[in-house]
Amino acid sequence: MRVLLPDLSEFRELSEVGERSVPGAELDYYRPGHVPAGPADGVVLWLATSATRDELLNLPGLKWVLTLTAGIDHVMERLPEGVRLFNANRLHERAVAVHALAGMLTAARGLHRFRDAQARREWAAPKNLNDSGLVGLDGVRVVLWGYGHIGRNLAELLSPFHAQVEGITSGTPEWKRDELLAQADWVVLLLPSTPDTRGIVNAQTLSLIRPGAWLSNLGRGNLIVAADLIAALESGQIAGAVLDVTDPEPLPADHPLWSQPNVILTPHIASTTTDLIRRGAGLTRDFLIDLQQGHEPEGLVESWRTY
Amino acid sequence: MRVLLPDLSEFRELSEVGERSVPGAELDYYRPGHVPAGPADGVVLWLATSATRDELLNLPGLKWVLTLTAGIDHVMERLPEGVRLFNANRLHERAVAVHALAGMLTAARGLHRFRDAQARREWAAPKNLNDSGLVGLDGVRVVLWGYGHIGRNLAELLSPFHAQVEGITSGTPEWKRDELLAQADWVVLLLPSTPDTRGIVNAQTLSLIRPGAWLSNLGRGNLIVAADLIAALESGQIAGAVLDVTDPEPLPADHPLWSQPNVILTPHIASTTTDLIRRGAGLTRDFLIDLQQGHEPEGLVESWRTY
Repeated sequence: MRVLLPDLSEFRELSEVGERSVPGAELDYYRPGHVPAGPADGVVLWLATSATRDELLNLPGLKWVLTLTAGIDHVMERLPEGVRLFNANRLHERAVAVHALAGMLTAARGLHRFRDAQARREWAAPKNLNDSGLVGLDGVRVVLWGYGHIGRNLAELLSPFHAQVEGITSGTPEWKRDELLAQADWVVLLLPSTPDTRGIVNAQTLSLIRPGAWLSNLGRGNLIVAADLIAALESGQIAGAVLDVTDPEPLPADHPLWSQPNVILTPHIASTTTDLIRRGAGLTRDFLIDLQQGHEPEGLVESWRTY
Repeated sequence: MRVLLPDLSEFRELSEVGERSVPGAELDYYRPGHVPAGPADGVVLWLATSATRDELLNLPGLKWVLTLTAGIDHVMERLPEGVRLFNANRLHERAVAVHALAGMLTAARGLHRFRDAQARREWAAPKNLNDSGLVGLDGVRVVLWGYGHIGRNLAELLSPFHAQVEGITSGTPEWKRDELLAQADWVVLLLPSTPDTRGIVNAQTLSLIRPGAWLSNLGRGNLIVAADLIAALESGQIAGAVLDVTDPEPLPADHPLWSQPNVILTPHIASTTTDLIRRGAGLTRDFLIDLQQGHEPEGLVESWRTY
């Protein structure tokens, strides 16, 4: 079995003699501008440029691809027929859920506005306590739009708050979805980007959300029609948005989202932790050992249209 | 029983006919520059200027004071002998614990730095994933210095993270305290300000904390020797600090804490929520009804030197 891996020291360790090695597999390494020649049984795709990715996906003999992302939209449309795709939800779900809670608490406690005040060296204590806008999360109604592994982790993190967590999936009828959106204090987007989900947050769906509610997007930027979101923020239709993903990425410097006072932006780092690459190499090792021992590895993408 | 209350609509309701009234108590109201004349059995102290506070504490006939704060340092030294003091931990403990978690997650996820980048319209994705500095809270070692109601609430909020929470109290031996400080990822100050706790975080105690650890202060600003904290931040002795309280407050615009990159400042609002005054009035009502029915109300301050 010949497999191509990203050329990172944590992945190099998998072909060295030692406790982290994968005996019997022929491992080779790609980096920007260099894809080793010859056929490959599998590719572990991560942190590759789009040119490198396209080259890897067209290697002769390819039987499987493991993408160490949770999203698959960058692979799916380019995947040759008959090649099996695996993704790595479990590498990201915990970190993304923690990041989601961090964004919710930042918004609830006004930490973004206090940070702005700190930059002005201003002690911004609210003049009228009733108008502070500061809240907690106890008992909040949270709607998870897309309810899979990340959602279950987030629900667990919210359990000490006795939050009322509800999920919307592709099986949720539209009337029920609309009812849930209308009741939510928080709408958290955890959807993949597919033809069915692109632009799913638009003027119509935003109009259902009650004023005072916040939106959080940890799925993909193109789930949201940005112009509609900005209109909803400016009209007070919704209170604010925490966005880890945008469309496009990076967000151009002249984009109006940057300067919305209640938009909290992070640069697609929800799943980033200092040990992410090490964890990715560990997952890859387990995956390769499963294959060599004839076990079906976790993460097969069965259908990409459902969520 | 004649009682003076802050002149806020939520407290005015307690003397009106209706379900929120307190029958039989003679309630009167003070505001800045006006303390009603005559003796009073009790005073509910909140949001008063220091001049009003001093006037209230010297009313003839005073038997008790209920301060709707958790801290008591602003009252204790001025309390006439024989006057019983009650405080209102339970009004604040939940909100402060939630705010503490918000600060910890903000720091862990770098949200303060991303907010600074947002102000510059900069997509600040880490160039090297291993150097992102972004972490979670799973399994972190949290030392709560001062372990009472707030601490127990915070421990509960941290339980889904399987954090290792330890408390330091006045009964903790010094060797044990130093050992806990040396192991902590987070040191959270929840102490009151007393002669024994002022300056308790100084060059000596900071030197015990390991590099990479963060400090959070939700107690009182004067627990920390600010110059020593700044030196520890600048030398990398500690990674950062989340401060809801400072010394003095408001923090002057020229204070060096404002511009420390890994200091996250909020203006003493940890317990502030939009329903705080209403909750304070409700607690006052329960307190007065307890007194009138001959029950001992909650919150008697038995000793202010222990923590």
